[in-house]
Amino acid sequence: MAKGKVCLAYSGGLDTSCILKWLLEDGYEVVCFLANVGQEEDWAAVEKKALTIGATKMVIEDLQKEFVEELCFRAVQCNAQYEGRYLLGTSLARPVIARSLMRVAQREGCDSVSHGATAKGNDQLRFEFAFYAIQPSIKIIAPWRDPKFFNRFQGRNDLLDYAAANNLPVTSTKAKPWSMDANLAHCSYEAGILEDPNQEPPSDMWTMTEDPLKAPNEPTNITISFEKGVPTKVVTPQGTFTDSVQLFKELNRVGKVHGIGRIDIVENRFIGLKSRGCYDSPAMTILRLAHLDLEGLVLDGQVRALRDQFVTHNWSNYLYNGMYFSPERTFVENSLIFSQQNVNGEVRLSCFKGNAYVLGRTSSSEKLYSMEEASMDSLENFSPEDTTGFIKIQTIRLKKYADDWAEQQ
Amino acid sequence: MAKGKVCLAYSGGLDTSCILKWLLEDGYEVVCFLANVGQEEDWAAVEKKALTIGATKMVIEDLQKEFVEELCFRAVQCNAQYEGRYLLGTSLARPVIARSLMRVAQREGCDSVSHGATAKGNDQLRFEFAFYAIQPSIKIIAPWRDPKFFNRFQGRNDLLDYAAANNLPVTSTKAKPWSMDANLAHCSYEAGILEDPNQEPPSDMWTMTEDPLKAPNEPTNITISFEKGVPTKVVTPQGTFTDSVQLFKELNRVGKVHGIGRIDIVENRFIGLKSRGCYDSPAMTILRLAHLDLEGLVLDGQVRALRDQFVTHNWSNYLYNGMYFSPERTFVENSLIFSQQNVNGEVRLSCFKGNAYVLGRTSSSEKLYSMEEASMDSLENFSPEDTTGFIKIQTIRLKKYADDWAEQQ
Amino acid sequence: MAKGKVCLAYSGGLDTSCILKWLLEDGYEVVCFLANVGQEEDWAAVEKKALTIGATKMVIEDLQKEFVEELCFRAVQCNAQYEGRYLLGTSLARPVIARSLMRVAQREGCDSVSHGATAKGNDQLRFEFAFYAIQPSIKIIAPWRDPKFFNRFQGRNDLLDYAAANNLPVTSTKAKPWSMDANLAHCSYEAGILEDPNQEPPSDMWTMTEDPLKAPNEPTNITISFEKGVPTKVVTPQGTFTDSVQLFKELNRVGKVHGIGRIDIVENRFIGLKSRGCYDSPAMTILRLAHLDLEGLVLDGQVRALRDQFVTHNWSNYLYNGMYFSPERTFVENSLIFSQQNVNGEVRLSCFKGNAYVLGRTSSSEKLYSMEEASMDSLENFSPEDTTGFIKIQTIRLKKYADDWAEQQ
Amino acid sequence: MAKGKVCLAYSGGLDTSCILKWLLEDGYEVVCFLANVGQEEDWAAVEKKALTIGATKMVIEDLQKEFVEELCFRAVQCNAQYEGRYLLGTSLARPVIARSLMRVAQREGCDSVSHGATAKGNDQLRFEFAFYAIQPSIKIIAPWRDPKFFNRFQGRNDLLDYAAANNLPVTSTKAKPWSMDANLAHCSYEAGILEDPNQEPPSDMWTMTEDPLKAPNEPTNITISFEKGVPTKVVTPQGTFTDSVQLFKELNRVGKVHGIGRIDIVENRFIGLKSRGCYDSPAMTILRLAHLDLEGLVLDGQVRALRDQFVTHNWSNYLYNGMYFSPERTFVENSLIFSQQNVNGEVRLSCFKGNAYVLGRTSSSEKLYSMEEASMDSLENFSPEDTTGFIKIQTIRLKKYADDWAEQQ
Repeated sequence: MAKGKVCLAYSGGLDTSCILKWLLEDGYEVVCFLANVGQEEDWAAVEKKALTIGATKMVIEDLQKEFVEELCFRAVQCNAQYEGRYLLGTSLARPVIARSLMRVAQREGCDSVSHGATAKGNDQLRFEFAFYAIQPSIKIIAPWRDPKFFNRFQGRNDLLDYAAANNLPVTSTKAKPWSMDANLAHCSYEAGILEDPNQEPPSDMWTMTEDPLKAPNEPTNITISFEKGVPTKVVTPQGTFTDSVQLFKELNRVGKVHGIGRIDIVENRFIGLKSRGCYDSPAMTILRLAHLDLEGLVLDGQVRALRDQFVTHNWSNYLYNGMYFSPERTFVENSLIFSQQNVNGEVRLSCFKGNAYVLGRTSSSEKLYSMEEASMDSLENFSPEDTTGFIKIQTIRLKKYADDWAEQQ
Repeated sequence: MAKGKVCLAYSGGLDTSCILKWLLEDGYEVVCFLANVGQEEDWAAVEKKALTIGATKMVIEDLQKEFVEELCFRAVQCNAQYEGRYLLGTSLARPVIARSLMRVAQREGCDSVSHGATAKGNDQLRFEFAFYAIQPSIKIIAPWRDPKFFNRFQGRNDLLDYAAANNLPVTSTKAKPWSMDANLAHCSYEAGILEDPNQEPPSDMWTMTEDPLKAPNEPTNITISFEKGVPTKVVTPQGTFTDSVQLFKELNRVGKVHGIGRIDIVENRFIGLKSRGCYDSPAMTILRLAHLDLEGLVLDGQVRALRDQFVTHNWSNYLYNGMYFSPERTFVENSLIFSQQNVNGEVRLSCFKGNAYVLGRTSSSEKLYSMEEASMDSLENFSPEDTTGFIKIQTIRLKKYADDWAEQQ
Repeated sequence: MAKGKVCLAYSGGLDTSCILKWLLEDGYEVVCFLANVGQEEDWAAVEKKALTIGATKMVIEDLQKEFVEELCFRAVQCNAQYEGRYLLGTSLARPVIARSLMRVAQREGCDSVSHGATAKGNDQLRFEFAFYAIQPSIKIIAPWRDPKFFNRFQGRNDLLDYAAANNLPVTSTKAKPWSMDANLAHCSYEAGILEDPNQEPPSDMWTMTEDPLKAPNEPTNITISFEKGVPTKVVTPQGTFTDSVQLFKELNRVGKVHGIGRIDIVENRFIGLKSRGCYDSPAMTILRLAHLDLEGLVLDGQVRALRDQFVTHNWSNYLYNGMYFSPERTFVENSLIFSQQNVNGEVRLSCFKGNAYVLGRTSSSEKLYSMEEASMDSLENFSPEDTTGFIKIQTIRLKKYADDWAEQQ
Repeated sequence: MAKGKVCLAYSGGLDTSCILKWLLEDGYEVVCFLANVGQEEDWAAVEKKALTIGATKMVIEDLQKEFVEELCFRAVQCNAQYEGRYLLGTSLARPVIARSLMRVAQREGCDSVSHGATAKGNDQLRFEFAFYAIQPSIKIIAPWRDPKFFNRFQGRNDLLDYAAANNLPVTSTKAKPWSMDANLAHCSYEAGILEDPNQEPPSDMWTMTEDPLKAPNEPTNITISFEKGVPTKVVTPQGTFTDSVQLFKELNRVGKVHGIGRIDIVENRFIGLKSRGCYDSPAMTILRLAHLDLEGLVLDGQVRALRDQFVTHNWSNYLYNGMYFSPERTFVENSLIFSQQNVNGEVRLSCFKGNAYVLGRTSSSEKLYSMEEASMDSLENFSPEDTTGFIKIQTIRLKKYADDWAEQQ
């Protein structure tokens, strides 16, 4: 084709169907790409739509395993959290999607890539930072930032009209009054009626968690095992799970039943706007808690403090901001992995009405916690007088400030 | 008295009753001190015991207001948390208790102070760092680090025998198989059977929260208002509360009913040991969540990130380690207060079965959040092409690493 | 005028003279602005040029005092340094220049501002971030990023031709093979032949420092006094200086004579490029050293460590990146000022052949340093046994790692 | 022997000679240990003294290579600096000395170790933290913290009397009015007359640097090559040096001649006291500058900022505080090494009268710096308009603060 070959991130929805058509009209050949990161999807239907509209090819890649193992489990090792609450579900999926799309683009001989992300959001950054980092020469077509596109399609109705005029096989069902993005790690809900931060989300919005109000009256107890900070085994009433994707899905199942992992926040986007987002992340919420708890038992306190301040904070921010394919993420992730070598053990939890509670934790290999030493009743290997010396030395500096404190009384 | 006058932190329990007697035997005159930080106590009975045993005087000080306003609310402004989970209940109370004890010691002409804190714990540090910082010349008598005391009293039985032999008015009821410390902010449970980190706490242990399993089937909705990050009004079905102590207690009441704020962790003590602690902190848990949520709406993202990484992390550690009366705590607290000048607004929450959920938040004075600007549907004052430039500039650096990422594929 | 009124940052050089003419041609009315931040300049000549070319007005503002007091002295209080070496001379001047230019723009009724900063540099960011932060509605004309301009003027020769064709009163002297920017804080040298990082700067390049090779064989001793971290008095063989600008200039004079404050570095620009810069900053180099030294005597060690890691690092980066008018700079500067309340005293230095050496320091008001206490010979108020306890407690944690270290031997 | 066998860190000086005798008197068998970390010493004379006094054995270990490679070069990779100035010479030597002493203690069957470090200093911490971390069961005899010793020997005269009475072979020459400690990395000078922080050090004090006033009038040019941040080759007028110890010594030689690396500071000791120290560190000063400079050319800016703030700051503090054998030092050092993989290249410097000046730097393998890209004159692969978008997006957040800044004008 004269204009070249584009690899388009195609979901089968209204927006990317119109973009696909628009690219074809503009003279491009288009290879469509869709990543399977665990979302519910009628894959065959998507493929059919793409080919019907005119795509040369529809490539669907199952990325669940690399998504869980390389991104989600890394986030668990990190206790990753953005602004104290968001577990980064979308941010975690973007790097594997972008990397796979670029693999397809290169394999299919595309010189451009395209996507349907909007112009004020984080996802355009996460995709395009990755595209350029992986292949600096790649050409990116971002229709929602191209005046030829966004001036023509100024709202949903324009898209619907275009779809109708071109017989695009899109469902005419009324859109939900918010937008969603789902993967194994979470489902996100934003925009539309959620833009009013004082508007409570409708109870039928959530898809990956049941309403805690309607959750079972009996808790479910589970056990999670970790090796080097990575979840390796989950035991629930349904059985024992050791495959990474299977154990993750089982935790999503248990967490869904008990309504675990909903948050509703106003967050700071990279581009300087605040936005409101709701997220439900059952497995990630349970895993983060279990991992955090196990670290209490097995991780040295100073290493933990440093890891929290330096690695956890920064890794989370880098992922949120789309800086996965960056030297700084690589740098802190090296530290993260190093910190996890002794994070081995298991945590027992109870899931109930919106919460997971830790019941106990053990580690057969790690010995930093000692009941004997911690015990207030034992003076084995401990001279109480030593603490007096410790206090005296620690207060040399504090005593200098005595006059200041005296004044405050 | 020949040996001088001691101000003893006296609780009326077995340990400090024995210490009181032991100090008197040793020739000291003793003034007893007990702080009211909101714990349940038969104050008259404690006074009677102290005087019966031989104290010159029993001073009981109501510190609830300064505890809530100067410490608990500061922790709320800070989103304070130790090691990702502990809300610092005991750590927050120690500075006001120590400061008040020193005021009494100075007023009563004592040249020494004494306490019953154990030799491996954090509380001895929190008390003594404060005592020395307030009055460097103070003499501290720490019986549990004095071989004359700890060699003589090697366990609870030795104390009981001593109490019996000296007719000390202590109850002979069987001790709980763990130790507790309560104040308005929380109740802590540690030692004894809890020293096994894999042993689930008994369900009758918790005192400030009902069992979430037995909590009401109907949620309670509440609203919390903040000015400069400080809670100033709480509205619940019981009414509207604006007094600092009263609103705090009302949140404890609502949180208790719904079982909100239990944690069970293994933590790193300052002196290098790990220990297991359980804590229930209803009001603090609800307030921290509400404050964290409001900050999303009103606090600049960069200031927030910096505050999280430096102020929140460090303030929490200083408090945990007993470094309240220190130049470093003063230094970070100055930053904290500065960061809170725009944290004004209100948060609506729902309390239900162990959890508080945010329903919505507003601020009449702050304008950082703009529905118009955040909206994906509006291009008012926004040129989508700008983001393209932003991405291009941001990726200049990332493109340098293209070869590295290429290799990974 | 139809097209509106522009306030142009005008230096009288070739670039901004062409920009002035180009704006006039394009139909704008132009008010020219030049800040006096201590650079050497024939002010009358600049004014004459501007008016000759066609500016409505030439406004020259003396900003030396605010530059020294609000920016340079703040940097001194902060020990500010970018990437371990650069003292931020240009970065410090930009905020006061931008603020003053905006004052003039507003006073003169301009709806646009313009400047001659290049498209890859830091200065465009520093100026424009400030302009927008001060007045979000301001229109910015950046010719070097406007294709109508940069496609027309593709090199110095195009500008010279344009100047000749339009009779612009610019000198036809051969340009230096690098570009320079001078103010009281420093002179910078970059671009041209300096773009080869292995090319030693020519010895006649430096303007604010003599060649250390040719500096006097006798040192000059000086004394600098600080109050709250701010230099308040300088004593040199030439006299005593207490006026902020005068003492700063005197330090520049002494530093110049002795060749103090040259650096030659490769630095990381905000936009992701590396560039090579040479800078000579006599007064700032001497003041930073003296202040750093005094802090050793009077600042608490923990506050200092925190200030270094959090305030110094970030304040320097914010200034470098043009983020002066930002909530984050305001936030860390509040901490900075708080940290300086006890930084009072004086430092004696010797200036000689490229270096300043500290000879001694004193503080009449601050008492953290005690010869008596520091002395190894005195045990006054110190029990050596306490250190044993301190060591024992500190090593509880370290002993856990014994097996690891044993393996390494 | 009844009392056991001690491994004593023995220098041959008055203090440790008295300690040796005192330990023997007390019934211990003593093996003496002396580390060669590059200090000037009459090794045979020390051995003779030890055996004369009664040591069972004198073990002298040459640690120069491990000292330079494992500690000094790591500090260079880190740009390590304590409190902005101190290059950590003594701190770097302690870990290798302590480790070697423990190897000897274990080989010789000693159950105790002993040293002559004083009770207020950092060195006792550095030694004993290491001893306990390497072998938790080791018994430490610290005479200067043992009342039986320090009450008997209250000053230098008591030691001299004891030496005379016991015919200890110590020289009776008058001690210098300060104490010194030398190794390859530096010589330190403290205590005595230096305890007055306003007292200029006498010009004959310095041992590893000539007086800059008397340094040659001709500079010496040198070139230093680095691989992964480690110095691998030094070229001076004397030749080419590639052996780690030899190149380090050659830099000490050149630096000494030109008087490079003197500092005089007041620092904060770990135990909370301030003290004054003077240090001359020629090779370390030159290497740190060269390494810092090369990093400008080859290290990513974000990685560098993070490394500076977390790794450099913390590694330096850990070393200063004696926390080498700690999980936290291991943790940050892993990050450090990871950060250095691209720090390859060479730096040319000129040494002259107290200073080293960078003349240029190159890297044949690293490509982050591009003359073409950095050039202001080239628009190859760069669209100036992109920066406009970058600025617009960056200022979305800043514009929110416009009202605040407006008020300040």
